[in-house]
Amino acid sequence: MFSPVINQLIERLNCLPGVGKKSAQRMAMYLLEHDRQGGLLLAEGLQEALTKVKNCQSCRNLTEYNECHICTDLQRDKSLICIVESPADVIAIEQCGSFRGYYFVLMGHLSPIDGVGPKELGITDLIARAQGHVEEVILATNPTVEGEATANYITEKLKPLGICVSRIAHGVPVGGELEYIDGGTLSHALLSRKQL
Amino acid sequence: MFSPVINQLIERLNCLPGVGKKSAQRMAMYLLEHDRQGGLLLAEGLQEALTKVKNCQSCRNLTEYNECHICTDLQRDKSLICIVESPADVIAIEQCGSFRGYYFVLMGHLSPIDGVGPKELGITDLIARAQGHVEEVILATNPTVEGEATANYITEKLKPLGICVSRIAHGVPVGGELEYIDGGTLSHALLSRKQL
Repeated sequence: MFSPVINQLIERLNCLPGVGKKSAQRMAMYLLEHDRQGGLLLAEGLQEALTKVKNCQSCRNLTEYNECHICTDLQRDKSLICIVESPADVIAIEQCGSFRGYYFVLMGHLSPIDGVGPKELGITDLIARAQGHVEEVILATNPTVEGEATANYITEKLKPLGICVSRIAHGVPVGGELEYIDGGTLSHALLSRKQL
Repeated sequence: MFSPVINQLIERLNCLPGVGKKSAQRMAMYLLEHDRQGGLLLAEGLQEALTKVKNCQSCRNLTEYNECHICTDLQRDKSLICIVESPADVIAIEQCGSFRGYYFVLMGHLSPIDGVGPKELGITDLIARAQGHVEEVILATNPTVEGEATANYITEKLKPLGICVSRIAHGVPVGGELEYIDGGTLSHALLSRKQL
């Protein structure tokens, strides 16, 4: 219905997660009618990020440098490595402010059906790194079936090497109301109760 | 928190309408982790559309050609011009399939506070065009205060020239339930009732 170039832009905006046909149309119209400069800057930003950003050589997090800003920060605690599934998890943990060690980002979880095995998650690099000056490896993969399977696999690989492995606690979220918490979480919270 | 290039991408995605900080972050991560090709195509699409798309010389609709595909379609009814506020309105009317004339896209509505006057809406071009082979000008601006004001202004300009001007009907939407329709629309529907 629109001209070919506009239709093409709408289709390509449609590829963004959470953007349907109508939102894509609204975005295209907004950029064309009110913010061409912003749209061109976005195009540049996309090109720059998508061509320059790669994985950090030591933790696999996304960065345009060879090593990310966390791995190059020498003030951190070398004896701790926290294993997470994605770069967004690193941000979440950094924002909570309770961790001052380094990270290892798997960039996914074990999922044989999608062809994601230990090799794709860089487990060999992780084992090599954990054998350095590391005292404890904290598994902070997601509390999902795949995340748990990945955590179990890594535990089985690291334990025999004499590395201390821990898993972040699961239970009722702080500030939540018991009434609205799902049964699985509640069972887990009861089973993992701590004596006071 | 992310690397500078990723932060820049997130900020620029944040400029899209309906995209907040969290969605922008999710989009950036999705493109970087799963769809770099799609992201680069989007960058190209943005650049192409934002540099090539301009206003149609005769109806002011958005197009990369000198005249849009509707204005160059000679099968249409030359005697009718429908005036709308935006390109999306043209699509909506085209999709309903009840109009086979030409359009004139104001690309906005009268809004003195934002510096949008008759000149910005191309009213002079509209008057020149309406004095051609046009028998009727249909005002399909939005049923808002600004849309109504714009429709009134255009009526006042065209009527003295002996041009037949009409306004699309306002009333209860077809398929709607009276119970859920706002009072203003209902009053309008009652006042504009048609004898059967």
